Amino acid sequence: MKRKVLYIEPVVSKIVDSLRAYLSQSKDIGTELEVISLAEGPRHLEYYSYGALVVPKILKIIKEAEKENFDAAIIGCFYDPGLRESREIAEKLVVTAPAETSMHIATTLGQRFSIIVGRTKWIPLMRENVIKYGFKDQLASFQSIDMGVLDLQIDSEETKRRIVQTAEKAIKKDGAEVIILGCTHQFGFYKKLQSILGVPVIDAALAAFNYAEFLVNLRNKHGWYFNKKNEYLSPTHEEIEDWKLSDLF
Amino acid sequence: MKRKVLYIEPVVSKIVDSLRAYLSQSKDIGTELEVISLAEGPRHLEYYSYGALVVPKILKIIKEAEKENFDAAIIGCFYDPGLRESREIAEKLVVTAPAETSMHIATTLGQRFSIIVGRTKWIPLMRENVIKYGFKDQLASFQSIDMGVLDLQIDSEETKRRIVQTAEKAIKKDGAEVIILGCTHQFGFYKKLQSILGVPVIDAALAAFNYAEFLVNLRNKHGWYFNKKNEYLSPTHEEIEDWKLSDLF
Amino acid sequence: MKRKVLYIEPVVSKIVDSLRAYLSQSKDIGTELEVISLAEGPRHLEYYSYGALVVPKILKIIKEAEKENFDAAIIGCFYDPGLRESREIAEKLVVTAPAETSMHIATTLGQRFSIIVGRTKWIPLMRENVIKYGFKDQLASFQSIDMGVLDLQIDSEETKRRIVQTAEKAIKKDGAEVIILGCTHQFGFYKKLQSILGVPVIDAALAAFNYAEFLVNLRNKHGWYFNKKNEYLSPTHEEIEDWKLSDLF
Amino acid sequence: MKRKVLYIEPVVSKIVDSLRAYLSQSKDIGTELEVISLAEGPRHLEYYSYGALVVPKILKIIKEAEKENFDAAIIGCFYDPGLRESREIAEKLVVTAPAETSMHIATTLGQRFSIIVGRTKWIPLMRENVIKYGFKDQLASFQSIDMGVLDLQIDSEETKRRIVQTAEKAIKKDGAEVIILGCTHQFGFYKKLQSILGVPVIDAALAAFNYAEFLVNLRNKHGWYFNKKNEYLSPTHEEIEDWKLSDLF
Amino acid sequence: MKRKVLYIEPVVSKIVDSLRAYLSQSKDIGTELEVISLAEGPRHLEYYSYGALVVPKILKIIKEAEKENFDAAIIGCFYDPGLRESREIAEKLVVTAPAETSMHIATTLGQRFSIIVGRTKWIPLMRENVIKYGFKDQLASFQSIDMGVLDLQIDSEETKRRIVQTAEKAIKKDGAEVIILGCTHQFGFYKKLQSILGVPVIDAALAAFNYAEFLVNLRNKHGWYFNKKNEYLSPTHEEIEDWKLSDLF
Amino acid sequence: MKRKVLYIEPVVSKIVDSLRAYLSQSKDIGTELEVISLAEGPRHLEYYSYGALVVPKILKIIKEAEKENFDAAIIGCFYDPGLRESREIAEKLVVTAPAETSMHIATTLGQRFSIIVGRTKWIPLMRENVIKYGFKDQLASFQSIDMGVLDLQIDSEETKRRIVQTAEKAIKKDGAEVIILGCTHQFGFYKKLQSILGVPVIDAALAAFNYAEFLVNLRNKHGWYFNKKNEYLSPTHEEIEDWKLSDLF
Repeated sequence: MKRKVLYIEPVVSKIVDSLRAYLSQSKDIGTELEVISLAEGPRHLEYYSYGALVVPKILKIIKEAEKENFDAAIIGCFYDPGLRESREIAEKLVVTAPAETSMHIATTLGQRFSIIVGRTKWIPLMRENVIKYGFKDQLASFQSIDMGVLDLQIDSEETKRRIVQTAEKAIKKDGAEVIILGCTHQFGFYKKLQSILGVPVIDAALAAFNYAEFLVNLRNKHGWYFNKKNEYLSPTHEEIEDWKLSDLF
Repeated sequence: MKRKVLYIEPVVSKIVDSLRAYLSQSKDIGTELEVISLAEGPRHLEYYSYGALVVPKILKIIKEAEKENFDAAIIGCFYDPGLRESREIAEKLVVTAPAETSMHIATTLGQRFSIIVGRTKWIPLMRENVIKYGFKDQLASFQSIDMGVLDLQIDSEETKRRIVQTAEKAIKKDGAEVIILGCTHQFGFYKKLQSILGVPVIDAALAAFNYAEFLVNLRNKHGWYFNKKNEYLSPTHEEIEDWKLSDLF
Repeated sequence: MKRKVLYIEPVVSKIVDSLRAYLSQSKDIGTELEVISLAEGPRHLEYYSYGALVVPKILKIIKEAEKENFDAAIIGCFYDPGLRESREIAEKLVVTAPAETSMHIATTLGQRFSIIVGRTKWIPLMRENVIKYGFKDQLASFQSIDMGVLDLQIDSEETKRRIVQTAEKAIKKDGAEVIILGCTHQFGFYKKLQSILGVPVIDAALAAFNYAEFLVNLRNKHGWYFNKKNEYLSPTHEEIEDWKLSDLF
Repeated sequence: MKRKVLYIEPVVSKIVDSLRAYLSQSKDIGTELEVISLAEGPRHLEYYSYGALVVPKILKIIKEAEKENFDAAIIGCFYDPGLRESREIAEKLVVTAPAETSMHIATTLGQRFSIIVGRTKWIPLMRENVIKYGFKDQLASFQSIDMGVLDLQIDSEETKRRIVQTAEKAIKKDGAEVIILGCTHQFGFYKKLQSILGVPVIDAALAAFNYAEFLVNLRNKHGWYFNKKNEYLSPTHEEIEDWKLSDLF
Repeated sequence: MKRKVLYIEPVVSKIVDSLRAYLSQSKDIGTELEVISLAEGPRHLEYYSYGALVVPKILKIIKEAEKENFDAAIIGCFYDPGLRESREIAEKLVVTAPAETSMHIATTLGQRFSIIVGRTKWIPLMRENVIKYGFKDQLASFQSIDMGVLDLQIDSEETKRRIVQTAEKAIKKDGAEVIILGCTHQFGFYKKLQSILGVPVIDAALAAFNYAEFLVNLRNKHGWYFNKKNEYLSPTHEEIEDWKLSDLF
Repeated sequence: MKRKVLYIEPVVSKIVDSLRAYLSQSKDIGTELEVISLAEGPRHLEYYSYGALVVPKILKIIKEAEKENFDAAIIGCFYDPGLRESREIAEKLVVTAPAETSMHIATTLGQRFSIIVGRTKWIPLMRENVIKYGFKDQLASFQSIDMGVLDLQIDSEETKRRIVQTAEKAIKKDGAEVIILGCTHQFGFYKKLQSILGVPVIDAALAAFNYAEFLVNLRNKHGWYFNKKNEYLSPTHEEIEDWKLSDLF
């Protein structure tokens, strides 16, 4: 069974190639992976407003991806920007995002999880997402390593050191059974961390990617797909035409 | 005390004039009101994706409003699109929106409220907002009148009839003590409804407008303003410059 | 627009004059403020039972205030004693109280708040109120400064020092975006604290006072008032007469 | 083991004798029961404000009961007026009330319960109590029989008929496993109802009475008594003396 | 990648062959499927106690499966009997069950789901599981078709008719965006139902089976596996030996 | 009134005699107490799986106890293994267990409780029970003394020292008003602890025992018993016969 999957780095990014290489190691048989980033816009989404700026661009990509017969698209930021919107305009394309998928996987592996964030600034929006997805009572804590997105891959030893330290606090003090790395740019660290900490450590980019493959399988086998009758009902083509919205997304 | 207030109809709209006239009747002494709508884009925001398309436009307006020394801006759609984002980029501008403010007022007037929606399609996003703002346990129910946004002001008698009918169900069956009209385009109906139903009926546009005036007062008198140190910390001007984001918002 | 507002210190109190002066600085145009305290009874309400003792006295005052054409009454204690009861017997008088209003304002300014209390003894009742008003998930924490009500204004430097210290814990450790001063006798401190802490600090007496003015405006403009049909339905005058309850309140 | 128990009808009441006879049938060996009502005040507590009026009278009785070496006092109204306050001033006296105890018993007998109320007006305060005691998620529903407190014992056949009808709705439609009669004046009906409905039907007056006996046993055997160190810490005698509060309660 | 998967019908069952055929249509490439049932015991698990009786038998099978190098085991009953216990004794075997997996999938496809049950008797235990897995706020409703487990496959037209009827109620009245068939013996119906209802309909047996394949992939690729350090820490072999527990499971 | 009560140590145990002596000091007049343990099986239930192994044995005992006209049975482990199942097969026998009863008593004595556990491994299952019984919001915290079940009675001074230390943390840091000893093998300590800590300390074995006596009284006096019509409906004797389940329990 073939699967065409698109991973969207929803920022201007220099790590597209390394991300592609990284994710490709985890492909299922039959998966073709493409990774793209934005041509212009912010380089990280640490702000609510940066997230909002890129959503129309994400929607454009989603529409394009659907035309090009992709089976799935992943929105590669732990804020899950544009996830609801993308599912709404999608017609048969599966759309996933890191936070939602990480939490589903984490709560299957243990009762409660902690999310390691870069800065405390990230927490309010992430907490809203935790609650939105229904995992409020499974959230053990947020723990911050006090680093911005763009710093995470600079001194990877220091990053790892801080994650270990905060994750241990989450495990001992907050009762976390699973650790989620709350930024897709913390990719590459989880295996080492897992062996140090002895508990599952979820890499959010991988979670979103493999969950996308899984949902494509479910769609193909069983027709399980987003509710398109009410919650994710698409806007009509007439309206989009009439109001000239196609320039906008 | 003077207050410059901007009401944003975040759609392409023909009712700007009637809205301005309507809201002006409720101004506090000292309030100057301006009402604007979008030059291009959707005419309603019944879809997640339409909401996302207009947020960058809202942010542009917010930034402009701040430069022009407005004291407050209201985002005039019951989905509260771009509320968090606007508060983040605002530096001293107060920003409010209909859903959040209606719920704060409603829960002060009675224990539980019901929201009258146009279509059931609106409910999932509105429920997420109810939960996000913390009012989950005060929500008695959603009740749908089965009409789209653009139909609401066509046959106002029919609209009123349906609202009365569903609101009575909300009161008797669901235990609502307060009714919220879940669309700013249901404006103008509340007084009549209130006298028929005998319970408070919140007009969401008025709620957002008067709450904005209230928050400006609190800001001016006490310096109470959004947390700008963490949750609503603004992006730096350097970053916006460097990444050429100013074209985007 | 004129507004007659009564602030009730629901204890025997020596600070009526300083409170009047303090609150008067924050009046809206058109507000006439009166501040009264009790002739006999407790000097603080740190106990459930003290609160219960003063509620009949508060109700008497509420009834009197209504007869004297006050527009609003504020029950000036952070336990909000008699709030429900007062709204029930009120016929057109707006009644507010510090805890309820502080939490509404706080959750508009940031995602989560902490309440600074005098003693841990206060927490159980205040937590019940937080839950009753629906703000359980927005409560970051209670933090105690270990001082009784009557000590708060004795050595104001020490009081301030302790509030700063505990508020900083609330911000850093508990993730509070807004600080609420959980006693009306902590009045006068908030501005200084706000500049030290860099986050909004809600003075509960001011919150209740200005929210009362706001609700009077909403009542006058829109007829928005407590649900008097069910939840706050008043007892009948016949019953009160027949059972000679008028001596009791 | 002897137990002196006082049942307080916290209203002016004509049913003291029938209540005493009724409750006496359920006494444990060793229990001495006294039933009293108020000399003046309201005849029912259907209003928040009526409840508040009688609390100081209840507190006076509680203090008196303690002096007369009662072991337990029951506050005989399903609103549980003055429960927290009474426990605070009590020093070794056990205090119980119908709503709290009924819910504890009900949730031991089945997963979810419904409360049969007289009027919908009662629901908001009772819901607050359900939440306060922590049983929000076990509440299947409130169902109203549309009768005032004073009507309940007039035509007992009609009362029974309506309770059966609403209880059946609660069982079938709302999934109630246990029925609670939400008024102590619905006493005497439960056994018949139980045999008709086939599910446990909790008489709130009996629940409070027998739970009081149980808590006295636990106090005597194990020293288990209300937390008097923090939550229910009593006011000091000095303060009560100094402020002449003893006249008040 | 090869995967050996064991589906356990945890009852005495005549449908093992048809289940195997049914599930096999949905296998991933590389999956080998075995289906077994119990040699003795109950034929359905509609009772708490029947569930408890079969758990030791399930645990025996789990241990055996691990020895035989299975990669995953599915416990084929919507009560998820023995799920926690199996994960605890498993060392590298993935264990899934229908309720948990169905809810994870359902909440990815739409905001709220309803569960179609056979009898109302099933609801209390299933609600406990919904809450245990954290999906309380996403549960729209339970709807009962009033049929026992063993009746479901007798007159399949009648079963389908009833499911359609109750599912439509769940969608229209309760706001369900996704339907979960709350019994693995409702297998085979979902596709037809899906086309009638127009919303995703989750077959719980397939959900558990495909989720098991997914988790095996995650385990193999990333080492993501149940927390074996604390929550699912296995008992020591010494203890099992010493206490002769191996006869028991 | 006579009451035959059976306390089941659901493990292989050497402390049956000391437990009997201990519990007997707290008997009500008329109670006959028997204490039994298992002939084979685990010696503690620190694992999910050990609990599952003993449930069928517990059910056998429950059935036997009912035949022998016991009035109540207590399942003596703080995990409450087999509680639901036992109530389902019971026909008139009252069944209680330590966790459920401790939490009911604790929440009557104070707002929030902490549970002192032996190891952090116990917490996930206990938290599930706290949530299942509805006491999530009254749980202040779990605190671990880092000792296994079988160590608790070895060096009782050390055990007590650790409990005091962690309980004080629970009181001061987590705001616990009541302490629950989360293991029936912590029996005997509570009185001393209570006098040191100054707050109620619940011995879980005693709680379950005395609550059982209480429920027998309620059953005898009022017919209040588990809902046997739906939630705890017993399996039919025919089915048990036909399927030869009587060997299993």
